[in-house]
This record gives sequence, structure tokens and C-alpha cells, in this order.
Amino acid sequence: MSPFSEETYRSERVFQGRLLNLRMDEVTLSDGRRARREIVEHPGAVAILAVDSQGRVALVRQFRTAAQSELWEIPAGTLEPNEKPLECARRELQEETGFSAQDWKELLTFYTAPGFCTEKMQLFLAENLQSVAQSVKISDEQIAVRFYSRAEIEALLKDLQDAKTLVALLWWLRCP
Amino acid sequence: MSPFSEETYRSERVFQGRLLNLRMDEVTLSDGRRARREIVEHPGAVAILAVDSQGRVALVRQFRTAAQSELWEIPAGTLEPNEKPLECARRELQEETGFSAQDWKELLTFYTAPGFCTEKMQLFLAENLQSVAQSVKISDEQIAVRFYSRAEIEALLKDLQDAKTLVALLWWLRCP
Repeated sequence: MSPFSEETYRSERVFQGRLLNLRMDEVTLSDGRRARREIVEHPGAVAILAVDSQGRVALVRQFRTAAQSELWEIPAGTLEPNEKPLECARRELQEETGFSAQDWKELLTFYTAPGFCTEKMQLFLAENLQSVAQSVKISDEQIAVRFYSRAEIEALLKDLQDAKTLVALLWWLRCP
Repeated sequence: MSPFSEETYRSERVFQGRLLNLRMDEVTLSDGRRARREIVEHPGAVAILAVDSQGRVALVRQFRTAAQSELWEIPAGTLEPNEKPLECARRELQEETGFSAQDWKELLTFYTAPGFCTEKMQLFLAENLQSVAQSVKISDEQIAVRFYSRAEIEALLKDLQDAKTLVALLWWLRCP
């Protein structure tokens, strides 16, 4: 047992939802102490840094119930059952922006909130975009799309309020 | 009603935990369609980019139950009831690293997972560090601390797996 590992000696699912489950874990620390953890189970997700031929990046704007406000975010979405991350990224990019991409590259993988949530997010770079839909309208979201230049993103940074979007854009701004 | 806003016409708390609550919202979109949202209620959090006099940044390593692995992260923690973000940041920095800081600055505020969670995180820059504790040991976490130079962070970036840590360090690497 590594000096920091925990052993789960009891785990109970206290809620099962459509997207999320919640479970209570009781764990033993390596020094013998015990602790309780409330864990949100999430199927995992993808996010897409989509860059067009003019070097501009796609942001989508939507109302977020949890934030009770509209946010600018990079396109993203939750993995469907048995869906591979790249497959999910292609689907979400098209659903949310109306674009497909010819070139895909894995950039980073991170937990959005590892203190309490299992959500693991894979970030992709998508290039060589092609418009495949006239208008964007998906099941239960309403979304606007806009492409931003590097200078516009620099100016917008301080006002962005979404972690994955900040990760992706700060990463992008460092690239030559 | 803005073109993207939603109106919540029904909200039910389905689980109440020690750290987290879960609620189900039923909402009406601006075009009249209805949708269901599973929302994790979180009290909010802070994270600290703590930089020492040699220009090195503090990372803490701990086992995360949700990730079932050890992660390197910047110091962070959840707001206690009625606790102000800066007060929480001072407390967490000391608890997790054994250091206090003389200079504090607000950098960014973001949602960690706005698609389903209300957690809003305030990121602080902490400078002029002073050691205030010999050893770090807090209630139910086991933590190791290390200071990393810019060059070490550059080399580590690809392996970091925590969103807030990536936001903070990518932001820091852009500073002169």
C-alpha cells in the first residue's frame, strides 16, 4: 500500500440518475484512520479545441442550469454508452457547431473535479474544419457558435468561466 | 427571456450529503421545449497558485478516491459555511502545505463542471511564502508537498490530470 493510497471498505450507491450516480465510500487511509467520501459517478466526457483555417477557435455559448447563466465554452459532451472518445468528439463537434474536422489529435486528459467526481475529460485538437450543417439545433440544448482569433481570446480570457475552456485556450495560446 | 435562458418550473432535491446535494430540475427552454437536468450542488471552492521566492510553484500530491489514483494538484479546498474565499484560501494553503503567504491576488474564477455541477472555484496567486508548520497533517487527507520550477512544470504538463491545476499552471507559464 503506497503511503497515500486508500482502501474502500464500504461503498453504497445512494442515487442513480440518467447522467449521474452518487455513491458514498467509506475508506481506510494507509495510517489506519477512516474517512467518508461522497463521489459523483460520471461516464466521462470529451472537449474539442476546433481551429479553422484562419487560426480562429470555435466557442459555443449556452445557458447552463448549474451556473444560472450563459457561458462561452469550447464544444464538449458526455460519452454515450460504449462510445469511444474520438467518436464522441466528432459527434459533439458536429452537433454543437455544424462542423466536421479532418485532422484530430489528442492533447490532454484530466479530471474536472477529482475531489468528488469521476468525470475524466479528453481534450482533442480538431483542424481542417468543414461545414456540414446549415443550422445547429440539438435535442435539449440551445447553442450559438462563434470563431475567435488569438487576439480576441487574449482579451476574453479574464471573463471565461469554464475550467475545460480555460485549459484548452491557455494551452493553445502557448503554441507558436 | 434571452434566446438561451431556461426557466426552472420544478426542482427536487433527491439527495442531501455532507459535502454535496443532488437535485433534479425540470426546465422550459426559450422555444417552449422542456428538459430535465441533474444538478450537483456544491458550496464552492478555492485553489491557490503559491509561488516561492525562487519562482517555484507548490504542488501537493494526494490519493483521490474518485480517480482511484494519486494526483499532483495545486493546493485547494471547499468553502466552509460562511467562509470568504480568501479566508478559505489562507486556511487551505496552510493546512495542505504548511506555508502562509503575505501577498494575495485574485486571478480567475471558473466553474469546474458547469454542465452538471454548481461548483464555482476562485483561483488565487499567493506570494511571499513563510513556513508556519513543521509537518502537514490534516483531518482526513494525506498530502505531500513539493515546489517545482518553471522548467519542471513545462516537463510535467502532459502528465498533470487535474483541470484547476492545468488552468493555474498554464496561466502562470504565460506570465513573464
